[in-house]
Amino acid sequence: MPKLASAEAPSPFRTRDERVRDREEKREAVLRAAVRMFNARGYHATSLDDVAASLGVSKPTIYHYLGNKEQVLVECVNRGLEMLRDAADATRAQPGKGLDRLRYFLLLYAQINMDDFGRCVIRTNEEVLSMDSATRFRARKREIDLFVRDLIGEGVADGSIAPVDVRFASFALAGALNWPARWHAPDGPMTPAQVADSLIAILIGGLAPRA
Amino acid sequence: MPKLASAEAPSPFRTRDERVRDREEKREAVLRAAVRMFNARGYHATSLDDVAASLGVSKPTIYHYLGNKEQVLVECVNRGLEMLRDAADATRAQPGKGLDRLRYFLLLYAQINMDDFGRCVIRTNEEVLSMDSATRFRARKREIDLFVRDLIGEGVADGSIAPVDVRFASFALAGALNWPARWHAPDGPMTPAQVADSLIAILIGGLAPRA
Repeated sequence: MPKLASAEAPSPFRTRDERVRDREEKREAVLRAAVRMFNARGYHATSLDDVAASLGVSKPTIYHYLGNKEQVLVECVNRGLEMLRDAADATRAQPGKGLDRLRYFLLLYAQINMDDFGRCVIRTNEEVLSMDSATRFRARKREIDLFVRDLIGEGVADGSIAPVDVRFASFALAGALNWPARWHAPDGPMTPAQVADSLIAILIGGLAPRA
Repeated sequence: MPKLASAEAPSPFRTRDERVRDREEKREAVLRAAVRMFNARGYHATSLDDVAASLGVSKPTIYHYLGNKEQVLVECVNRGLEMLRDAADATRAQPGKGLDRLRYFLLLYAQINMDDFGRCVIRTNEEVLSMDSATRFRARKREIDLFVRDLIGEGVADGSIAPVDVRFASFALAGALNWPARWHAPDGPMTPAQVADSLIAILIGGLAPRA
C-alpha cells in the first residue's frame, strides 16, 4: 500500500517535552546500569566503558548524560540519600507513639538499603569520593542517624521504647539494617519487605524471652 | 677504658633462634602497618610503597616478608578469621545456657571486629580478592555465621532465647556487631569492650519495654 500524505501524520520532529522526557529516560537508564554494576563489582572494578557496553552505547554518551565516573557515583549516592530523606519526611507526618513511628521509618529504611541506590549508599566507602563529596555524604548520613536518634528518644520519653542508650540503639539498628546491602541478593527468594520485617521484629523484641 | 677480650663477650653473630624471632617481629610490624593503612585509606588507595615508607624500609623488603599487595591483604584477613575461629573454640569450652554462651561469643566477636585485623575482615570486599581467596574467605565467614546460628538454636531449644527466626537473628546480630568496624574510631573515647557491651545489651533486651 502506498504511503499517503495525511493531515494526521505525526511530525517527524519531536516536541520539546518529548525531547526532555527522552533525555530523562536515557539518563535514568545509564544511572541504573551504572549503580547495578558498582554494586555487583565494586566501584574500582567498574569502568564506564563496561557500563556503556552494557547499554550498547559509547563512553562519551555516558559522559554526556552524567559526567565522569566519580560524578556518576555521586549521583547514585545522592539518589539513595534522597530516598532516605523522603522516608524521614513521610515518617514526620505519621501519628502514633515513638516506637510505632520508629518502626514505620525502619521498614522504609531497611527496604531502601536493599534498593539499587540505597545499596550504593551503604557500599560506597568515603575514601573513593573527593573531599567535598565525602563531606556532603557524611553530613547527609548524619542527618539520617540523628533522625533515628530523635525517634528513639521520643519512644523512650513516651514509654513505648525501653530506656536504652539512644546512641547505641541507633548504631545497633543501623548496623543490622544496613547489613542486608551486603548480603541480600536482589534476585533472591526473600523480598526486601520480608527481610525488613523479620529483622525489625528481632530488634524490637530482643533475643531474651519475654515473660 | 680499653676493650678487653673477655670470655663473656657476646658473639656478634645472632643465634638461629634470634634470627627467627627477628624475622617474625619484622614480618609482624609490616603486617600491622599494612592493615592499618588498608583500614584507614581503603585497599585500592593503599600502595605497598606507602606501607614501606611508613616503616622506613623499601618495597622489596615488604615483598620479602609478605609478598605482593593481594598476599598482604589475604594474610591480614586470615589473621582476623583466625581470631574469630579462636573465639569460637573458646566459646565451645564455655558452660551455661545458649544465651550465656552466645553472649560470651558475641562479646569476643564484636571486639575482634574493632581490632585491626577483624576490621579488615569486615572492610574487605570480596571483589578485590582472587577467585580462590574469595572462595576461602566466604567459606570461613560462613563457618562463623553457622556457629552463631547454632548458639542461637541452642538457646531457643533450652528456653534462654525467645523463639526467633534463627537465620534472621544471626543476620541482625552480625550486622549490628560488624558495623563498628566502619564507625568505631580506634583512638576514640569508647573502648571496644564498652561498645560491644552496650550493643549486645540492646540486641538481647530489644527496644520494646519489658513488663
